[in-house]
Amino acid sequence: MAATQFRIERDTFGELKVPADKYYGAQTVRSTLNFKIGGPSERMPLPVIKAFGILKKAAAEVNKDYGLDPKIADAIVQAADEVAAGKLDDHFPLVVWQTGSGTQTNMNVNEVISNRAIEILGGKLGSKDPVHPNDHVNKSQSSNDTFPTAMHIAAATEVHQVLLPGLQTLHDALAAKAEEFKDIIKIGRTHTQDAVPLSLGQEFSGYVQQVKYSIERVKAAMPRVYELAAGGTAVGTGLNTRIGFAEKVASTVASLTGLPFVTAPNKFEALAAHDALVELSGALNTVAVSMMKIANDIRFLGSGPRSGLGELILPENEPGSSIMPGKVNPTQCEAMTMVAAQVMGNHVAVTIGGSNGHFELNVFKPMMVKNVLNSARLLGDASVSFTNNCVVGIEANTERINKLMNESLMLVTALNPHIGYDKAATIAKTAHKKGSTLKAVAVELGYLTEEQFDQWVKPSEMLGPK
Amino acid sequence: MAATQFRIERDTFGELKVPADKYYGAQTVRSTLNFKIGGPSERMPLPVIKAFGILKKAAAEVNKDYGLDPKIADAIVQAADEVAAGKLDDHFPLVVWQTGSGTQTNMNVNEVISNRAIEILGGKLGSKDPVHPNDHVNKSQSSNDTFPTAMHIAAATEVHQVLLPGLQTLHDALAAKAEEFKDIIKIGRTHTQDAVPLSLGQEFSGYVQQVKYSIERVKAAMPRVYELAAGGTAVGTGLNTRIGFAEKVASTVASLTGLPFVTAPNKFEALAAHDALVELSGALNTVAVSMMKIANDIRFLGSGPRSGLGELILPENEPGSSIMPGKVNPTQCEAMTMVAAQVMGNHVAVTIGGSNGHFELNVFKPMMVKNVLNSARLLGDASVSFTNNCVVGIEANTERINKLMNESLMLVTALNPHIGYDKAATIAKTAHKKGSTLKAVAVELGYLTEEQFDQWVKPSEMLGPK
Amino acid sequence: MAATQFRIERDTFGELKVPADKYYGAQTVRSTLNFKIGGPSERMPLPVIKAFGILKKAAAEVNKDYGLDPKIADAIVQAADEVAAGKLDDHFPLVVWQTGSGTQTNMNVNEVISNRAIEILGGKLGSKDPVHPNDHVNKSQSSNDTFPTAMHIAAATEVHQVLLPGLQTLHDALAAKAEEFKDIIKIGRTHTQDAVPLSLGQEFSGYVQQVKYSIERVKAAMPRVYELAAGGTAVGTGLNTRIGFAEKVASTVASLTGLPFVTAPNKFEALAAHDALVELSGALNTVAVSMMKIANDIRFLGSGPRSGLGELILPENEPGSSIMPGKVNPTQCEAMTMVAAQVMGNHVAVTIGGSNGHFELNVFKPMMVKNVLNSARLLGDASVSFTNNCVVGIEANTERINKLMNESLMLVTALNPHIGYDKAATIAKTAHKKGSTLKAVAVELGYLTEEQFDQWVKPSEMLGPK
Amino acid sequence: MAATQFRIERDTFGELKVPADKYYGAQTVRSTLNFKIGGPSERMPLPVIKAFGILKKAAAEVNKDYGLDPKIADAIVQAADEVAAGKLDDHFPLVVWQTGSGTQTNMNVNEVISNRAIEILGGKLGSKDPVHPNDHVNKSQSSNDTFPTAMHIAAATEVHQVLLPGLQTLHDALAAKAEEFKDIIKIGRTHTQDAVPLSLGQEFSGYVQQVKYSIERVKAAMPRVYELAAGGTAVGTGLNTRIGFAEKVASTVASLTGLPFVTAPNKFEALAAHDALVELSGALNTVAVSMMKIANDIRFLGSGPRSGLGELILPENEPGSSIMPGKVNPTQCEAMTMVAAQVMGNHVAVTIGGSNGHFELNVFKPMMVKNVLNSARLLGDASVSFTNNCVVGIEANTERINKLMNESLMLVTALNPHIGYDKAATIAKTAHKKGSTLKAVAVELGYLTEEQFDQWVKPSEMLGPK
Repeated sequence: MAATQFRIERDTFGELKVPADKYYGAQTVRSTLNFKIGGPSERMPLPVIKAFGILKKAAAEVNKDYGLDPKIADAIVQAADEVAAGKLDDHFPLVVWQTGSGTQTNMNVNEVISNRAIEILGGKLGSKDPVHPNDHVNKSQSSNDTFPTAMHIAAATEVHQVLLPGLQTLHDALAAKAEEFKDIIKIGRTHTQDAVPLSLGQEFSGYVQQVKYSIERVKAAMPRVYELAAGGTAVGTGLNTRIGFAEKVASTVASLTGLPFVTAPNKFEALAAHDALVELSGALNTVAVSMMKIANDIRFLGSGPRSGLGELILPENEPGSSIMPGKVNPTQCEAMTMVAAQVMGNHVAVTIGGSNGHFELNVFKPMMVKNVLNSARLLGDASVSFTNNCVVGIEANTERINKLMNESLMLVTALNPHIGYDKAATIAKTAHKKGSTLKAVAVELGYLTEEQFDQWVKPSEMLGPK
Repeated sequence: MAATQFRIERDTFGELKVPADKYYGAQTVRSTLNFKIGGPSERMPLPVIKAFGILKKAAAEVNKDYGLDPKIADAIVQAADEVAAGKLDDHFPLVVWQTGSGTQTNMNVNEVISNRAIEILGGKLGSKDPVHPNDHVNKSQSSNDTFPTAMHIAAATEVHQVLLPGLQTLHDALAAKAEEFKDIIKIGRTHTQDAVPLSLGQEFSGYVQQVKYSIERVKAAMPRVYELAAGGTAVGTGLNTRIGFAEKVASTVASLTGLPFVTAPNKFEALAAHDALVELSGALNTVAVSMMKIANDIRFLGSGPRSGLGELILPENEPGSSIMPGKVNPTQCEAMTMVAAQVMGNHVAVTIGGSNGHFELNVFKPMMVKNVLNSARLLGDASVSFTNNCVVGIEANTERINKLMNESLMLVTALNPHIGYDKAATIAKTAHKKGSTLKAVAVELGYLTEEQFDQWVKPSEMLGPK
Repeated sequence: MAATQFRIERDTFGELKVPADKYYGAQTVRSTLNFKIGGPSERMPLPVIKAFGILKKAAAEVNKDYGLDPKIADAIVQAADEVAAGKLDDHFPLVVWQTGSGTQTNMNVNEVISNRAIEILGGKLGSKDPVHPNDHVNKSQSSNDTFPTAMHIAAATEVHQVLLPGLQTLHDALAAKAEEFKDIIKIGRTHTQDAVPLSLGQEFSGYVQQVKYSIERVKAAMPRVYELAAGGTAVGTGLNTRIGFAEKVASTVASLTGLPFVTAPNKFEALAAHDALVELSGALNTVAVSMMKIANDIRFLGSGPRSGLGELILPENEPGSSIMPGKVNPTQCEAMTMVAAQVMGNHVAVTIGGSNGHFELNVFKPMMVKNVLNSARLLGDASVSFTNNCVVGIEANTERINKLMNESLMLVTALNPHIGYDKAATIAKTAHKKGSTLKAVAVELGYLTEEQFDQWVKPSEMLGPK
Repeated sequence: MAATQFRIERDTFGELKVPADKYYGAQTVRSTLNFKIGGPSERMPLPVIKAFGILKKAAAEVNKDYGLDPKIADAIVQAADEVAAGKLDDHFPLVVWQTGSGTQTNMNVNEVISNRAIEILGGKLGSKDPVHPNDHVNKSQSSNDTFPTAMHIAAATEVHQVLLPGLQTLHDALAAKAEEFKDIIKIGRTHTQDAVPLSLGQEFSGYVQQVKYSIERVKAAMPRVYELAAGGTAVGTGLNTRIGFAEKVASTVASLTGLPFVTAPNKFEALAAHDALVELSGALNTVAVSMMKIANDIRFLGSGPRSGLGELILPENEPGSSIMPGKVNPTQCEAMTMVAAQVMGNHVAVTIGGSNGHFELNVFKPMMVKNVLNSARLLGDASVSFTNNCVVGIEANTERINKLMNESLMLVTALNPHIGYDKAATIAKTAHKKGSTLKAVAVELGYLTEEQFDQWVKPSEMLGPK
């Protein structure tokens, strides 16, 4: 740090000292001086940087078709590849809290790629020659269309690389448990109170359905995320681009990523609004709601060891309490529920940002993409962690489950069709007051015989319609 | 009020005075005593009551197939029809803030329908004979599956009857304006600052796209709303129903409503979680985001009359200020943006409710459906009001638009491909400082000739790629 | 409805038919035509109307000091009193979703009061003579200062009349329970898992503290709510008012309400921002957080009757399930937690509205006050309902509590200071695996003697520091 | 990285490889294996780590009073000082998404301090001798009371070191501008439309008031943040601590930080709920609302240069657009409004976390503190950035301001007291339609003379009551 060497660069505001070992240039340094907000943990998320690498590569290839000097184009492609591969991560120091268009990050990318391309071509860093950050790297582009394009590429990539695989992992593990537990009959709980029985497999099948739909919901939001703003340039008109540029860039990005990106049918909407990300965030919010439910259930069903519900035995992963020896806590559930709360909060930030665009440009872009990426990553990672460290190791405490089910007063419901609701209610309430069994009370009250009770009240026959 | 007559009914907790002219019974009265929260404006939304009318009719018809006395079934159907038609609205006094399963509203419906059916059949109100609220009206049902079924029917109906038509109305009006304004070239604005030109029609096309996608987003959320919980009874198993009941009820509801309802593939999920409503609320939230953007733009573009942007002339609908004579305000935009904020808030309430279900039952049901219905209704109504009282009457202030565009410094962007970004920037900044025109400065700086300027800087040629 | 008679009035937009039996006039009717959004349940909350009654009375009295004809002033005062007393509620048909300044409601009030005053003075409804809605009732006022004044009066009144008494009621009932339960030692639960013991009274004392702080938080937000915008007129300057008007109105309102209202020190802030209501809403949000915790705990501690935690016995208030006879549900907890979720959602709506003011006027006023009033009322009402129908009737299930505590493995924590954390952990884990008791295992492992165990592990001595 | 050496440690789950150059131990490594969620940017915020340094130092000092070997205590103090000073930041690798009690971070701190203390005393890392992480560093503590204590210390410190100074900086700069601009009379805007005049100083005084109240609101939330849970240990009882420990720790922390920390009056509340942080977050949310308003106003008032409102000239800080040369954007306003949206989202996450505590422990602790710290830091940093790079350089464009004001139709309001509202309205509307001046129309309509107009309509006399 101490011995850092600098080169002097200038922008329209004067000279600036740029660290000699960095590819970024004056505009990036200028931004670091103007936006000292939040520190390193608030840097532009790396998936955005990588998405820019992909976009700049695609743009250079398309620009070559439209006449950009192949030598320059190829050098840009090579440099952009390095950005996309994460080799130049240290050259992107800007925080999210910059201009709301992300212009400074676009320029950061332009500077890094042009300087790296210059280096590849044997030129001098900072000379803008032979590769100019604006005229070549940013050719036919504007921050106003590149940043939202990078937002969509980054979001789609994170969804496909982290979120959906994570959800699938969780889905499959829950489905395996639903199958494993399908013959274990247990008491149901509604209003947190004892209710009629179901199988533990049925209970888990509800979670499986939630995760299955989580995946569907996220996928349903993707078509509009696959729409790219590239080619809209400054206000959506496509000024200074060539006819066909937008379509070619989208299809190049599609082939580079393997994802079905297309050019946005209306570029004005694509720059001025980020409804597609609000929509995706809404899907993530729904996923978070599902995760909260599932993780809450599992920790309550696994509560104990002796004073809780105790129907599930959760894996022990770490020493529990720093003061209570031997205590095991549902820590994976806790991480998951914290993630869920965060995603719900992120969603509100995205909503507010999305609603406050004006005229031809929404200027909450970096904040919006940061939150969407954070939500996708956290949900994906937490799903895997929750699966591997909790779900796969869940065991049914069948002894406890059987005990609770056999004591349950709610089995009385099976009598409704036979003796009517009012008499059944009397049986249950009487048994509750007396601490007695349903059968004893039912017979005592003269509502039915012991044989009828045994015939009518069979938990295993209460698991479905007849 | 004073002379109200009562009949005495009893539930398991004792006697209760029921107003003699009301069809509801003891359990409804009990709830009004136990939940004095919020007053009349907090009553269960009528679309839920109507949905219950449809559901109870469907259930009675299906129960008839399974052996319910046709005379009873037909009386239930007739009474349920009256509920669905809104003829008995005064008989549903319960507030949303009751039991979280909506049990009390289900019982309110059961009581009203059974008593009305008893009346039809010549019986005595409150006698439960010959039509029992639980044994007949609620046959093969539980609050736990009927209430979520009614939630979905109500939400889908409100979406189809109010929201989607409202959005379509707005869409069409905006599309007509986009067409009307397609040849009016105006200055663009990014970062709220002057930018390169676009046509007013292009600007409006962005709004059209947002509303078009609003419609798509809402529709995309519907498949899971069409899934009905009916047949799941208490915990999702379908205990006390007959095989085929669930499917038949769903298809009967579908034919009664003309909407593609189906039975939920997993009833455990359908009772324990309301992710489908969270998802729909998320779509409504995205619609609200779009509405906020559109209404904000229109009020700013119509700001003035003399000290604002003044590009649009908004219709005058009412006297403006109570102190500033002659003032006209964008009141429709204000109603719309207030609605948007409300919908975003409602969405958070729905999210929190959805995430807090436990075990076999989510008990935030009434609150969740209230907010979803409120959001759908407000957005639909506000779209129509905004369209009829604002959008259709918007006029372009072409004089003002032309003046602003011709003075704009951002036309300099057209020079980028010819003289490069840096020189173009110098021209713009110099013109700004001197209060001069771009052309004068460009020539003065020797960067190009007057002829070149006229040839290169043509707003009408800056509206698309070349 | 059918036979309604009308009188014809005109505003600057033409003639309008006004129902002959209504005091409101043309501007009100105009608003009903222009804003068909949401229906009757979306009407301006009555506390706002009553607050306007108070304000208009105060203004008339002060205007009399400044020269308003006493006959006119007195008639206004009389009419305003009727508004404040709720006698004219049917004359305020406007919905919240109107102009964002509330101008139309201010004019509704002006029209009703002027017409009622005209009637009192023997004039003709709609004649504006001898009492003019603008020149007399609205004298020295603007919607821009009256509406926020009414917002603050309404919010403060609702807080004092409903919310704070409700919270105090809850506080006192919980405090009584904390005292009643102070000697009942029970197992603690952290991470939802068994933990070291505490007394049930201690557990309830945490709830008491939360409610105590709830009251303090609400009170802490009030000083800025007591600041009134009246006297700021259109933009905050006080144009067209007299020096001293603002102060006199505030002090008159204070004496009419018994609340310490003062004139806002900066009227620009008081019109352009409603941070004071956002702040109050933030306090209500924190109250909601507390309520969610308390109600959740109580329903889980009262879960059962046989398969839950079962430490509390909650009062039975109504028949439980429509299908499961004898089931008793924690319905008051459910109403409270639904209210809590709603308040959190309302808070987001208030936040968004509060953040979107522009220049001299925030135009989300009706929406903001609607949500704040809703939150205050719901929390206050629900607190009373929850107290009376649940808290006061809670009983400790001491048999169950004792059983769980005596079986608990977490009592081992008492051994930490004697044998160290690691050995204590071994005891607990071994006992858990074997299903044995701590004492047996401890002795078996040779870590201590039976006597030492009895001496060291005394739940009653684990309730505090030594 | 490649050549990392390891030492082998064990916990109750087996052996683990700990990097040889790290002070943390087995439990920390265990957590990194179990919680691979989010990556390095999701690490526990450093202010929490520093707060732990302070707390552990205070606890060691107090424990020395209660008999802890002074040699051990002093070594702990020295190591804790290094933690508090940020010298050991690399030794805290855990992410926020861990156990919801923060136990693993507490153990991370215990391990780092014990190992560093062992090193100081010449022992062997990982030996737990002579300084044991649980028995010595964590003495009289539990994660359940230390983590919330660290949360409060961290939050209070961040508020005092970053947020309040930042807000004060902004306040003072705005106040200076309000004074500087006090004689510049300009048109007001309500509903975004032209309204009666005020001075630019008055307009800014509204912002000053908002920031002044922002500071007051944050301060008003602090008393409950100053309450420390330390001494509550596992469930709030203070088991295994000594009488007086809690008070002594709080007062030691107070003297170490210079902030008025006290021991929480009810430890059950302090562990089970984090209402104090929800309350603080609510204050930050209100601050965010104020910031959004101020930054929005400033960017709109500074919009242009030629097609916007143009009343303010904002400082140019960086090259503007990557495609539109010469464009200057209100980037500081954009950073500020993005921060505001983030804070509002963070607040929802905090609210949800705060509401979901159960029984004796809220397990959303790390998530809650992360968001509160993030909000405080972002608002503080952004306030400074916004002040230095925007507010202090704002200039009034008096030429533009004068032009707009003189053309304004809303000056007609000054005529209300003289000719009545209705005639004044006619003048304004006629002038608007004709594009004429108020004076010309007023005279033409015969409502008054030219002299009267000049006498009555003086903007400088419209700035206050008379």
